[in-house]
Amino acid sequence: MSQLQRIVVSPSQLQDNQISLTPEQLHYLVRVLRSYDGDKFIAIDGTGKWWLTKLQGEFGIVLELLEVQTELPISVTLLLALPKGNGFDDVVRACTELGVANIVPVLSDRTLLNPSPQKLERWRRIAIEATEQSERTIIPTILEPMTFKAALSALTAEQKYICEGRNNNPHLLSYLQNQKQITNNQIIIAIGPEGGWTDTELQLATETGYQPVSLGKRILRAITAPTVALSLISALHEV
Amino acid sequence: MSQLQRIVVSPSQLQDNQISLTPEQLHYLVRVLRSYDGDKFIAIDGTGKWWLTKLQGEFGIVLELLEVQTELPISVTLLLALPKGNGFDDVVRACTELGVANIVPVLSDRTLLNPSPQKLERWRRIAIEATEQSERTIIPTILEPMTFKAALSALTAEQKYICEGRNNNPHLLSYLQNQKQITNNQIIIAIGPEGGWTDTELQLATETGYQPVSLGKRILRAITAPTVALSLISALHEV
Repeated sequence: MSQLQRIVVSPSQLQDNQISLTPEQLHYLVRVLRSYDGDKFIAIDGTGKWWLTKLQGEFGIVLELLEVQTELPISVTLLLALPKGNGFDDVVRACTELGVANIVPVLSDRTLLNPSPQKLERWRRIAIEATEQSERTIIPTILEPMTFKAALSALTAEQKYICEGRNNNPHLLSYLQNQKQITNNQIIIAIGPEGGWTDTELQLATETGYQPVSLGKRILRAITAPTVALSLISALHEV
Repeated sequence: MSQLQRIVVSPSQLQDNQISLTPEQLHYLVRVLRSYDGDKFIAIDGTGKWWLTKLQGEFGIVLELLEVQTELPISVTLLLALPKGNGFDDVVRACTELGVANIVPVLSDRTLLNPSPQKLERWRRIAIEATEQSERTIIPTILEPMTFKAALSALTAEQKYICEGRNNNPHLLSYLQNQKQITNNQIIIAIGPEGGWTDTELQLATETGYQPVSLGKRILRAITAPTVALSLISALHEV
């Protein structure tokens, strides 16, 4: 089943068990994949449902709702200072594969570049592609970029961590292990830019209830750190 | 201390506490970083030693041996099927940051491309750069590419894992947690190409003592999986 092509459709495309495919989706199915009428694919609505679907003309006919469980039992929000260059693309892709629920691009003291609307669109497309590839059922939400201060006050969760490599902080894993038995469904993890958070930012975060943590004894690049944090959170909640 | 520039030197450059710098290293220190006589940097020999060093003419004068502990207490060998494109660059960089000891590029049933000697040189340069950036003391070894079969018989370790996403295998983390108390200093982790290992390869590996493991419920790309595995191994041995 999992070898069938997966295509994300919007709820408005589905009516009476019939999906009216967009020209792009039809092009992809018919021209790129060379599918014929009667060939099957999987339609994903991006909010948790997979349907086994059959191509018929310009429509997908829903055959059955599939039971898929590839989502984490917790909601993880990644609050990430915007790195320079195209590093954010890789982070969105890898963290989607690892089950992230929300990604918040953050303007920090050391990264003030406000990304263009095109960039945001691009990250959302990457999140959709990675959802299909990794066989998830829910597309992560990429929020509009906001300042670090705004993110700290807008977002709440039972567990909030801020990664900071240089201050001999306890390892993220030790907190995750201690917290695992406690009922809490939401984790926020904040990861800084190249060069790290400023002291002011760190203080602001700890005052807002963020626990400073380490991701190990070596210095990680800003685009490696999110994958490491998500790997630990995902594994600990799936074992 | 950690903010000083780190430069990898070869053992042959050091004699009587004096490092004779190569033209490239001198260019980098003097022209790029604009260092002057008397300015300090850190010389790394790549096998575990850091020296605080002072620039003097074409030499570095060793001032003191530094105590640095950024290496994992275990030796991790990553056996990785060669992905298409430049994905291997990213894997070498991220896994070096995470403390890998050896990386073995493997020719598998689904990836038969033999990389050029230039590629191997490139990966070794990336490993050196990532060692400097991540503040490690030991440069990981990138072995010559070999067939999967040759790798299975050439490499030995107390713990050997092969990642395989589709067969409902137990999670790598559960094995790592069980094995942590046992004295063993070597782990090998084998990660397949896009499309996964073939059944023949999986069988060969399990016959050689490899434990098939999962890295979670979602399907990871071949270039994400090594970072995830290394993240878990590193964290579990540093907490």
